[in-house]
Amino acid sequence: MPLRDECGVIGFYNVEDASQKAYYGLFALQHRGQESAGIVSMESSTGKTYTYRHMGMVTEVFSRSILRKLPGDMAIGHVRYSTHGASAPRNIQPLVVEYHWGTFAVAHNGNIVNADILRKELQREGAIFHTTIDTEILLHLIAMDDSEYIENKIVNSLDKLRGAFSMVMLTPRYLIAARDPNGFRPLVLGRLGEGWVVASETCAFDLIGARYERDIEPGEVLFIGESGLFSKYLSGRGKRSYCVFELIYFARPDSMIFDGVSVYEIRKKFGEKLAEEQYIDADMVIPVPDSGVPAAIGYSQRSGIPFEMGLIRNHYIGRTFIQPEQGQRDIGVKLKLNPVKNLLKGKRVVVIDDSIVRGTTSRKIIRMLRNAGAKEVHLRISSPPVTHPCFYGIDTPAQKELIASQKASSIEDIRKELEADSLGYLSIEGLMEVVGKAENFCYACFTGNYPVDPIGVERTLQMSLFEISKEEEK
Amino acid sequence: MPLRDECGVIGFYNVEDASQKAYYGLFALQHRGQESAGIVSMESSTGKTYTYRHMGMVTEVFSRSILRKLPGDMAIGHVRYSTHGASAPRNIQPLVVEYHWGTFAVAHNGNIVNADILRKELQREGAIFHTTIDTEILLHLIAMDDSEYIENKIVNSLDKLRGAFSMVMLTPRYLIAARDPNGFRPLVLGRLGEGWVVASETCAFDLIGARYERDIEPGEVLFIGESGLFSKYLSGRGKRSYCVFELIYFARPDSMIFDGVSVYEIRKKFGEKLAEEQYIDADMVIPVPDSGVPAAIGYSQRSGIPFEMGLIRNHYIGRTFIQPEQGQRDIGVKLKLNPVKNLLKGKRVVVIDDSIVRGTTSRKIIRMLRNAGAKEVHLRISSPPVTHPCFYGIDTPAQKELIASQKASSIEDIRKELEADSLGYLSIEGLMEVVGKAENFCYACFTGNYPVDPIGVERTLQMSLFEISKEEEK
Amino acid sequence: MPLRDECGVIGFYNVEDASQKAYYGLFALQHRGQESAGIVSMESSTGKTYTYRHMGMVTEVFSRSILRKLPGDMAIGHVRYSTHGASAPRNIQPLVVEYHWGTFAVAHNGNIVNADILRKELQREGAIFHTTIDTEILLHLIAMDDSEYIENKIVNSLDKLRGAFSMVMLTPRYLIAARDPNGFRPLVLGRLGEGWVVASETCAFDLIGARYERDIEPGEVLFIGESGLFSKYLSGRGKRSYCVFELIYFARPDSMIFDGVSVYEIRKKFGEKLAEEQYIDADMVIPVPDSGVPAAIGYSQRSGIPFEMGLIRNHYIGRTFIQPEQGQRDIGVKLKLNPVKNLLKGKRVVVIDDSIVRGTTSRKIIRMLRNAGAKEVHLRISSPPVTHPCFYGIDTPAQKELIASQKASSIEDIRKELEADSLGYLSIEGLMEVVGKAENFCYACFTGNYPVDPIGVERTLQMSLFEISKEEEK
Amino acid sequence: MPLRDECGVIGFYNVEDASQKAYYGLFALQHRGQESAGIVSMESSTGKTYTYRHMGMVTEVFSRSILRKLPGDMAIGHVRYSTHGASAPRNIQPLVVEYHWGTFAVAHNGNIVNADILRKELQREGAIFHTTIDTEILLHLIAMDDSEYIENKIVNSLDKLRGAFSMVMLTPRYLIAARDPNGFRPLVLGRLGEGWVVASETCAFDLIGARYERDIEPGEVLFIGESGLFSKYLSGRGKRSYCVFELIYFARPDSMIFDGVSVYEIRKKFGEKLAEEQYIDADMVIPVPDSGVPAAIGYSQRSGIPFEMGLIRNHYIGRTFIQPEQGQRDIGVKLKLNPVKNLLKGKRVVVIDDSIVRGTTSRKIIRMLRNAGAKEVHLRISSPPVTHPCFYGIDTPAQKELIASQKASSIEDIRKELEADSLGYLSIEGLMEVVGKAENFCYACFTGNYPVDPIGVERTLQMSLFEISKEEEK
Repeated sequence: MPLRDECGVIGFYNVEDASQKAYYGLFALQHRGQESAGIVSMESSTGKTYTYRHMGMVTEVFSRSILRKLPGDMAIGHVRYSTHGASAPRNIQPLVVEYHWGTFAVAHNGNIVNADILRKELQREGAIFHTTIDTEILLHLIAMDDSEYIENKIVNSLDKLRGAFSMVMLTPRYLIAARDPNGFRPLVLGRLGEGWVVASETCAFDLIGARYERDIEPGEVLFIGESGLFSKYLSGRGKRSYCVFELIYFARPDSMIFDGVSVYEIRKKFGEKLAEEQYIDADMVIPVPDSGVPAAIGYSQRSGIPFEMGLIRNHYIGRTFIQPEQGQRDIGVKLKLNPVKNLLKGKRVVVIDDSIVRGTTSRKIIRMLRNAGAKEVHLRISSPPVTHPCFYGIDTPAQKELIASQKASSIEDIRKELEADSLGYLSIEGLMEVVGKAENFCYACFTGNYPVDPIGVERTLQMSLFEISKEEEK
Repeated sequence: MPLRDECGVIGFYNVEDASQKAYYGLFALQHRGQESAGIVSMESSTGKTYTYRHMGMVTEVFSRSILRKLPGDMAIGHVRYSTHGASAPRNIQPLVVEYHWGTFAVAHNGNIVNADILRKELQREGAIFHTTIDTEILLHLIAMDDSEYIENKIVNSLDKLRGAFSMVMLTPRYLIAARDPNGFRPLVLGRLGEGWVVASETCAFDLIGARYERDIEPGEVLFIGESGLFSKYLSGRGKRSYCVFELIYFARPDSMIFDGVSVYEIRKKFGEKLAEEQYIDADMVIPVPDSGVPAAIGYSQRSGIPFEMGLIRNHYIGRTFIQPEQGQRDIGVKLKLNPVKNLLKGKRVVVIDDSIVRGTTSRKIIRMLRNAGAKEVHLRISSPPVTHPCFYGIDTPAQKELIASQKASSIEDIRKELEADSLGYLSIEGLMEVVGKAENFCYACFTGNYPVDPIGVERTLQMSLFEISKEEEK
Repeated sequence: MPLRDECGVIGFYNVEDASQKAYYGLFALQHRGQESAGIVSMESSTGKTYTYRHMGMVTEVFSRSILRKLPGDMAIGHVRYSTHGASAPRNIQPLVVEYHWGTFAVAHNGNIVNADILRKELQREGAIFHTTIDTEILLHLIAMDDSEYIENKIVNSLDKLRGAFSMVMLTPRYLIAARDPNGFRPLVLGRLGEGWVVASETCAFDLIGARYERDIEPGEVLFIGESGLFSKYLSGRGKRSYCVFELIYFARPDSMIFDGVSVYEIRKKFGEKLAEEQYIDADMVIPVPDSGVPAAIGYSQRSGIPFEMGLIRNHYIGRTFIQPEQGQRDIGVKLKLNPVKNLLKGKRVVVIDDSIVRGTTSRKIIRMLRNAGAKEVHLRISSPPVTHPCFYGIDTPAQKELIASQKASSIEDIRKELEADSLGYLSIEGLMEVVGKAENFCYACFTGNYPVDPIGVERTLQMSLFEISKEEEK
Repeated sequence: MPLRDECGVIGFYNVEDASQKAYYGLFALQHRGQESAGIVSMESSTGKTYTYRHMGMVTEVFSRSILRKLPGDMAIGHVRYSTHGASAPRNIQPLVVEYHWGTFAVAHNGNIVNADILRKELQREGAIFHTTIDTEILLHLIAMDDSEYIENKIVNSLDKLRGAFSMVMLTPRYLIAARDPNGFRPLVLGRLGEGWVVASETCAFDLIGARYERDIEPGEVLFIGESGLFSKYLSGRGKRSYCVFELIYFARPDSMIFDGVSVYEIRKKFGEKLAEEQYIDADMVIPVPDSGVPAAIGYSQRSGIPFEMGLIRNHYIGRTFIQPEQGQRDIGVKLKLNPVKNLLKGKRVVVIDDSIVRGTTSRKIIRMLRNAGAKEVHLRISSPPVTHPCFYGIDTPAQKELIASQKASSIEDIRKELEADSLGYLSIEGLMEVVGKAENFCYACFTGNYPVDPIGVERTLQMSLFEISKEEEK
């Protein structure tokens, strides 16, 4: 529950009313970003593009009449929670620009670790930056590339990026999907009638009735055009580094990502493994909903301790909720979660959560369960302790705020701070065993072993462009 | 999942920043009505009232600056989904009027079966109706009552109402809570510091830190004022008729209503009983989330068939969602629910839902599960067949639209129509056994035995007042 | 420029798309009220009414799609600037209610002086008030009237009102127009094809292409129905008391009101008379635009001193203008008016305004002209000193705030306070002479001779209903 | 009345709460552009910039809380009516970008005739365009300039532009004001306490209490920084080409522009000259308000024919007005103007307008006056016939739509088409005589003699970027 992935992307080629499909697809990807949404559509017959982007959730941003003004059989879309790049209207994706050879639009999920270095170089060569998002760097690389053909311009430019990117792009001839050589973020290809669709997760396919074909491969740049599909490949391919946190927390449980892994099933297996490693006798197993549910089911089935829905989640909370003023601070977690008192009274409870970042929410939940009458509260986490920040697109706090990396904090220290009767994490070995093909995944947030050198990522450029959004004014 | 209750109410006496508390309370009661929200606050020192009401969800309707303009230590609030009374700004509760003896505000949950008869009589006597909601009738009854004291005016007026009402009222002297003699709808009393709070369900208490004291009794009119609490009683008390559907579907699982029944636990018991009555061999039990979850857990535990979260619910869907146009109709249920394909493939599945009304959604879910690869789909319902409409505040369709009351439809007929491999309902006897003190509940929607005569309820008055809301214009 | 009239009304009978016509008519009457706007339409075939009312200007309140949801061949409309009745959504007119004999809608311009007395009586008899506006009193009087026929109910009820009212009403059978026996406020009848239109001023007719027929007479209640027009008359007719301030300031110059007086021409004559009475040698005559223009033209033509547009008015200022913070207070008048410096430099200037109320704006204008380089500034007012408040619908401040009624203030005292080189008002005799049929007009604000006893008008009822509008929250 | 200028600009240096001053200044310049508004503020101490831009009028776009989020002692602002560059959110000025040496913001009034040529060249060299407005070209020229110092970069880049530009720019060190060598558009310098202000017209100075110092000279690039003011000069200076249409129609009458010409006074003189050249005996002279007023006063004073305000203008019309549907087309002009019937009846009327473009509005006005009863309608225009389009920033229609350039249309042909009894234009000689220093002005729209070669201005680039604004959705 604690971390936020930054973005979801989707793209369509040769699909009727592509912008409407993009709307439904972005709706299915809403969990990947709730801050802003945008769609760029293109009519392949004329090459004209139509753009609409706004702060807000997908259902707030778009109306039927807006979708009608986004005609075309090609489209890309984006939902965003910002990591880098201030939260401002100017930064809403997709980006759209006009080159001398035509229009180009791009939507990006991930984080470019050499962004600041590239940005400075480009500025010295005369590039002007209108936004503070990394994606704009690609636009300038393409503009300045000497290659004759656009296909090569794009591949050459992507080759200069380091870090994580799963992207969809639109030109008058192609829908293009690209994934960094490590394949940090997911990106899947599907079929929709005679047309094609690319999306961050397969849950977007289910809603629009598309059929999953395959993943975009790490390092692949897939061009979808009139004459069909062809791929070019980025250099540096080899070691894969799929983000294991997508499986643990980010992706939707009904998605299949990273070459067909069922997110629900692997989470359940994390729970089973956790039961093996961290069994404790208790009266019930309860999840922190919604993300802890599959692991709690797995824990319950393996341990034989009954599964119960001891915490009820309120789903009506939205961005406009009025935060309580001083003196009511502890209402925070209560707004989302409420215990079922009668159920918990006098009981020994195992609580399953997917991860702990700062630990503040976990402590509140444990107190809430105790106040509801639980006799014992045992916290079990279906992933190892998070000790290092992510540089590939996940919004982790600074290392010093991670409860598991503070001081020489032992599990026992954390347990005390969270006020749990016992605490158990899934081991890194257990995690790897469940994942299988463990070498294909990135565990940097648990181990500090970064597959792509993040040096240079300490933001040296202090962007001084602030833009106010209408939403801020409410 | 199929029926909608109409309203939630809340009231405060001697509570600092009462309107802010009302905001949080209504937020906790949001599941009882998402169409409009309103708060009336009162300063007991001056008797001044402040009103804000608008179409929309609680978090959309109120902002911090609006709450600041609702000062006072008393307040009542209301969330609404309209049953009778057109959906229009004029009908948003609470209602507030000025009598010669002062201000009076009221918020109402329920349905008055003799509303049209009373309305006509009152109009003949010179009453003017500004709204089309039943609650306005009470205002006129009070205005025309001859009693000297306001306490008697209110009790005499409530005595003329037939049907279901759980109400909170505000006068310069009292917060008043009233519940009809049958006690159809819940209404609970809590303590908040030195002050008092009344709400539809206890989940509202949990969020604001109030302590549950007791239910407002059927037929009780509770006056909370400077000198403490005192009660008067309506005539006609005796037979209780708590709405069993509040337990089956409406109330939040973390609430305790009807003299302390835990909603979660009784739903789980419905599931256990259902497993006893309607066992079938299968690979997994899955709920239709969220309302079917406790019953599915109960079914799983009693039957020993593993519980799985085979359908994932998307909670981002809001009122502004763009419904798909012709040719994409089947997207309807998909927007809310998506199956976990890998989990279901080749499996025999028991699906647990709380009730079936029209049956259209059930059929879509069954098809969705089959398309996801389920080998067998067995539908189990944790309540008996709904065969009769409700006249006490629940928005059931006309009898002919109820799948279980059509023709001489047998369970087998329904099963065929829903395309299930098997279908089983909880029996009425089983339901009563689980409920305990069965005589205290209303089962009219299952049996047609109406505890209060609904004759006269066929709306004879064709209100011709239409009002347009801004929301309609989007 | 200083006073504000409260309302404009319009009504249609047997006119296609009546609500659209009402929109244009209210737009033409926008100067009579900018706070809120509302339209009630009715289909004569079904008797169904459709209402839309909102805070804001006519063009802000209505959209094409809203007008489409207001079908019917009958309609009434209202624009409002509140005098009595707090500025709140609940008080937006027209009012619409349901009697036992059907729907009734009303829109009102004027002020009822015995409102509080009637309100209290009605409340004692059991009436409930939903709004704080006087118009609601009429609704209750009608509801409680014993007459058999609606025509008599309405006339009897209007007969109980004292003060100023020009009203339009809608019933399933009639469009009704009523004017108080004194005829304080204008109300005119026009023909539109086969149908009829009633409006506050003829400028509304011009825009929709209607033809002026005649004024609704003082004391007349005109019923327009299927069988044509017929009138009933209120008691107390005799002395007319047309509001002379409508001619001086309120009405639009392109209107004809009060039996065909051209507002532009009479204002010009006020200016001519003013030149005769208050001539002074100068280089130019300039108006305070826009209301002072016709009088300034008259003054210039009679005096022979050239007319110049020495003050330019900025028309972009709207309700949402951000008022300057402390230390920039004098920006107030500057926002609306800016002098033409080169024109004024070293010149002797006669400034013409229609009236002075508090005097604060006049002083600022005079200072502004001096700062722009004017050598002499002579203020001439095309009406007599305002010494008494109005009780018939004009929003004058309390008497003590009227500059001309303070202390034993002589013209010379006022001149000093306004910092003018000279000051001259039109005499009451001059005013009467220009008006002609002087006995038909009310001059109470200049003389204190009130044609209808305003005793009882000191608001004794402290309404305690406050309602917040969304607009306040910006 | 017929043409629209495109933009107004304003800039501040060393002024407390610069963004608030910019708000008032833009409000005073609102007549130069009503489509969008934007402000960029900068804190000189930190170099941080803050941006807010939105579709809408100044008072709609900004709120107090937004202004508070635009801190700093430097600011530039812009109001816009688009000529080139589609009307879209992306095109709202000021533009703000980040160079390697810091932030740069610019706001522009005018039109660059070699924009497309430059744009193509820049794109070939690797520039990416985010907007479709000409101003972005300057940003790229600066980015690609080899000069060491920013001052030179800016001057070199401006030197490459051809056409009309009056600009304000903001860097961390300077407020910069630049005007093209011909000086087509006005740009004035003022003093505000210890600080400086630059604006399109002096009317902006009046509102904020600034003192006019001098014009920015044609070809001057003025740098205002910590060490005071210094100027650099563009090549190509020599021939001045002030837009005479600013005097005839665009500028506000209370402004002084083009080295101190009083707009009001020169318009009055155009009217006087017109009376000399095109006298006709009549009963009254009336203006088409508001722009025709000064010329009508001049005509009246010189001819001795009385001035009257025979057409009343409705100022409430806004962008959201609902245009009438088919069958009511002639309501168009009526919404803005309404005749004073009694005044006009049976009279011979001289109507004064500032110019005729298409002629459609003039014909409607003449018909309106005749319907109001005028016996004769004589149209007099205070400028020569418009025969050629403008390429320097004025939104004229294509040449074929200009009534005076169609066929071999004589004045008599135009008169017939407008249905006037007589028609007279001010001669080009008369215009020049009144203007004085006639060689300093551009008369291209009357003569076709373009002072800067507009060849290349035929837009060759078909921009295919469309962006939808929220406003469109209403």
